Amino acid sequence: MSARVVLVRPRNPLNIGAAARAMANFGLDDMVVVRPWAPVWRETVSAVGAEKLVLAARAVGSLEEAVEGCSLVLGTTVLRDRRVERDVVRLPDLGDYVKKRTGGEGKTALVFGSEKTGLSTAYLEKCHAWVTVPTDPKTPSMNLSHAVAVCCYELARGAMAAGAPSPSVPVAPAQELELLARHAAKLFDAAGYLTFLTPARRMSKIRRALLQWNIRATDVGMLHGIMRFLENKAPGIKRG
Amino acid sequence: MSARVVLVRPRNPLNIGAAARAMANFGLDDMVVVRPWAPVWRETVSAVGAEKLVLAARAVGSLEEAVEGCSLVLGTTVLRDRRVERDVVRLPDLGDYVKKRTGGEGKTALVFGSEKTGLSTAYLEKCHAWVTVPTDPKTPSMNLSHAVAVCCYELARGAMAAGAPSPSVPVAPAQELELLARHAAKLFDAAGYLTFLTPARRMSKIRRALLQWNIRATDVGMLHGIMRFLENKAPGIKRG
Repeated sequence: MSARVVLVRPRNPLNIGAAARAMANFGLDDMVVVRPWAPVWRETVSAVGAEKLVLAARAVGSLEEAVEGCSLVLGTTVLRDRRVERDVVRLPDLGDYVKKRTGGEGKTALVFGSEKTGLSTAYLEKCHAWVTVPTDPKTPSMNLSHAVAVCCYELARGAMAAGAPSPSVPVAPAQELELLARHAAKLFDAAGYLTFLTPARRMSKIRRALLQWNIRATDVGMLHGIMRFLENKAPGIKRG
Repeated sequence: MSARVVLVRPRNPLNIGAAARAMANFGLDDMVVVRPWAPVWRETVSAVGAEKLVLAARAVGSLEEAVEGCSLVLGTTVLRDRRVERDVVRLPDLGDYVKKRTGGEGKTALVFGSEKTGLSTAYLEKCHAWVTVPTDPKTPSMNLSHAVAVCCYELARGAMAAGAPSPSVPVAPAQELELLARHAAKLFDAAGYLTFLTPARRMSKIRRALLQWNIRATDVGMLHGIMRFLENKAPGIKRG
């Protein structure tokens, strides 16, 4: 899925550089600017790591020129009380929507309006569909480069999805936890700890803790080690 | 799901304001800053719509103070060649991960390092797990406020999904785990356990285990109890 970021009438060159950096963070490199306000609109100070991208960006006179070669043009908007005349795609659904409409082929343009006004109706009407970021109604308006950042992140997210987070160290197998629990029960018994509980209640308490804790394979040895240490080195504990 | 954004040693007040705006966009309002560089660190120029949030932000002297009251502390990092000793959560899985670990209850702290260096190992070791934004390896480093923006967006996105069943017993607050870690370090020291390690390495080992285990509020008393028992009842252990 390939995408172009189109900025319409951006006022602050720092935002252009920052948007470029966000694009580069998520693997995009195609930026077009429509009628920038500032004569010197290329800003590399805020484009850390994306200097080439911003220097390669083109300035054009119209949205038509900006989206040349794109098969899908998506205009971003906060919607407010605008009459809805297009598909409105909520940002979390952006990746799916683009895939469904383009089959993953061709180039998609993501169009952003100026910091002050966003995209006017005239621009929005030239878009296939509208994308809206579901922001808090109390503070709906985003910084331009932040809007670019979350949209680029969302486009890239589909490719990143790795399902469940993989723990860096594997979780201990259940049977090892059971051995740990028995070891602890034996130690508690020898030490006279929690002996006011029946053996079954004590075992149940130990098991609950060990199973709820997110104990890793590498922790098992350490825990047995602590218990062996207590058994061997603390003469106050009766040997089992 | 409630969240706090913690900025450690931020250099540029404009980034603090911009981060506040991104938080407000996604419905968050709790910001704490650890040891800001600039004496005048509150910046409302870039906090459009989030002026109150940034003026209400607190500056504190340590991460411990910053995460007080939080039950889950997540440190953001680009990982690079860091030795992995925690769950590493890729941003797209953040919402699910938080839900799974907290059951949607309690407060989660998202910790961000300074613009230049990110979070140092000393800070990362005090976190339950690490969050990484899978950026393009060619331009991995994000603007600080962009990182805050995509993380807040992702948390808001996760919160839109159906809630996970909440655990019957809430997770222990971070500061209680720190007290447990100190208690264990004192006990280990008195007992001569793991003394081949430097105190710092031993503490780091204890913290890693306690933070990764999913320890519940009700487990805290039991663990202190076990340690007090060992201190008082096992004469073989030197008293601290």
